[in-house]
Amino acid sequence: MKATAKAHTNIALIKYWGKRDESIILPTNSSLSLTLDGFYTTTTVAFQEDLSKDSFILNDQSVEGEAYQRVTNFLDKIRNLSGKTNLYAEVSSINEVPTAAGFASSASGFAALASAGTRAIGVDLSDEELSRLTRQGSGSACRSIYGGFVEWEMGSRTDGKDSQAVQIKPETHWDVRVAAVVLSSTMKKISSRAGMKRTVETSPFYTGWLDSIPNDMKEIKSAIRDKDFEKLGTVAESNCLKMHATTLGANPPFTYWHDTTLRVMHTVQEMRANGIPAYFTIDAGPNVKVLYLPENEDRVKEKLQEIPGVDRVTLSKPGPGVTYL
Amino acid sequence: MKATAKAHTNIALIKYWGKRDESIILPTNSSLSLTLDGFYTTTTVAFQEDLSKDSFILNDQSVEGEAYQRVTNFLDKIRNLSGKTNLYAEVSSINEVPTAAGFASSASGFAALASAGTRAIGVDLSDEELSRLTRQGSGSACRSIYGGFVEWEMGSRTDGKDSQAVQIKPETHWDVRVAAVVLSSTMKKISSRAGMKRTVETSPFYTGWLDSIPNDMKEIKSAIRDKDFEKLGTVAESNCLKMHATTLGANPPFTYWHDTTLRVMHTVQEMRANGIPAYFTIDAGPNVKVLYLPENEDRVKEKLQEIPGVDRVTLSKPGPGVTYL
Repeated sequence: MKATAKAHTNIALIKYWGKRDESIILPTNSSLSLTLDGFYTTTTVAFQEDLSKDSFILNDQSVEGEAYQRVTNFLDKIRNLSGKTNLYAEVSSINEVPTAAGFASSASGFAALASAGTRAIGVDLSDEELSRLTRQGSGSACRSIYGGFVEWEMGSRTDGKDSQAVQIKPETHWDVRVAAVVLSSTMKKISSRAGMKRTVETSPFYTGWLDSIPNDMKEIKSAIRDKDFEKLGTVAESNCLKMHATTLGANPPFTYWHDTTLRVMHTVQEMRANGIPAYFTIDAGPNVKVLYLPENEDRVKEKLQEIPGVDRVTLSKPGPGVTYL
Repeated sequence: MKATAKAHTNIALIKYWGKRDESIILPTNSSLSLTLDGFYTTTTVAFQEDLSKDSFILNDQSVEGEAYQRVTNFLDKIRNLSGKTNLYAEVSSINEVPTAAGFASSASGFAALASAGTRAIGVDLSDEELSRLTRQGSGSACRSIYGGFVEWEMGSRTDGKDSQAVQIKPETHWDVRVAAVVLSSTMKKISSRAGMKRTVETSPFYTGWLDSIPNDMKEIKSAIRDKDFEKLGTVAESNCLKMHATTLGANPPFTYWHDTTLRVMHTVQEMRANGIPAYFTIDAGPNVKVLYLPENEDRVKEKLQEIPGVDRVTLSKPGPGVTYL
């Protein structure tokens, strides 16, 4: 009745940006990510018969309020799957992901919770089934079930049975690295949930965004198959810029970018002009992630650390899928 | 055979961003601007019978190359209108507009050239006719024929006979001020001509941009009629953000923003949060223009000058239309 799972966060190269169903979290477009080995959550779930409610401890602190509610609501789904609706759980998580800074801590968090929770209660799911369950806790978390490059297929059904993650594998391992550039001032004002909702509902650019996804997805999958780094980076950077463009058309308009965000973007483009292949992507926050190849690691790290307003640069390799401890 | 005209530049509050006809410059959307009294061009045109070609002196320096070609091509249009195709002209301009920095020096330049040129050669045009002629030199220049708030009606004809500027007047004078915030590093990499062309041809957001214009135009004209500064500023700021969003979707993507651009934008939004009504707009370059009311001039100027990376702040009142000296 107790299990521990470790899941890594992922960085989207084709962004998830909008829901067609808020309750079971169905996206308006397919997305694609790289799981990162540098950022992860380790979660233990212990179901017990003598508890009157769930408890949730995050980094040794008891959690209440909205975050607690999301966890206990998700545990309800696991209880329903198993038929053991009379059990409550002690959930304990250690989060190695900076929160509220544009890093998807909810991705590794819900992937670890779903994995540990189902194993603890004795429900045996395939990876695809596990990804569909995880999706209902946090959309992008469904991609963290797998390592490496992962596509979240949007699906077309209203019940979500075809909205799941699958791995996209080059023939041999491809060591694409990611530098996570954390800015000194990083609290975001608009959550990704609220930002995507406002954008879907009000931005005149949302249709153009959706129309551009199938081609981006086709291109990036061919880049992964061919291990074509320039193509991978070009598509990822352009897709990120399109996602952020949609927010500028929202009503009221908003942006996740700080001045330092733009400085990092320009520095990456300058690196390319100077012969270092590097590409940026940015989630719903001010921080920047930079894609590069291992042979350029030292130069990329040095250039990024020199930028005024950058607090730290953390390097990451491709990470594995969920593991059980 | 000689005349001197002074024309002021204008700042677009609803942006001109795309051509449907490159040769006689017909826009894909109507636009609206405020003529500024701080930035202007004074041009003297002298037609003579004993010249073998046109000459163009800008700020006491002889101009050759592409800029010369645009002037002499425009003089051809004036010669054709008058029937006096055997005359050449000495053109001499003094430009009080920083060039290549997102300020439309071509706007005041072509408005002054069209006005002085037609008067020198003896062609008598109404303001609307003059604006249609000016449009063919530089699109946004057609709005500089008039003072205050000016709409460039896009028209629907293929010959451009209904694509002209008209004045939009509140019942009494409305003193809306503009602070031009010039950044320390200001050379832009992509001209507005090239930028709008690439955007029209490749951005998936261009349709959304066009679809949003009629409502923006309706709202801003009602704001001018009612002298509703908050509404004017809100529409202008949102329209500017939409224009800049379209460039992020272009292939390849680009932005005119520097890190300091974003810092100025955030400072303006902070001013509003602190009760000072101020709104930004940005043309095809990194500089920012800030709309404010006279009673807040000192505080707005002080706040903007304090921003690191800002070189200077120049204040301007609404400017007049073309005058003859």
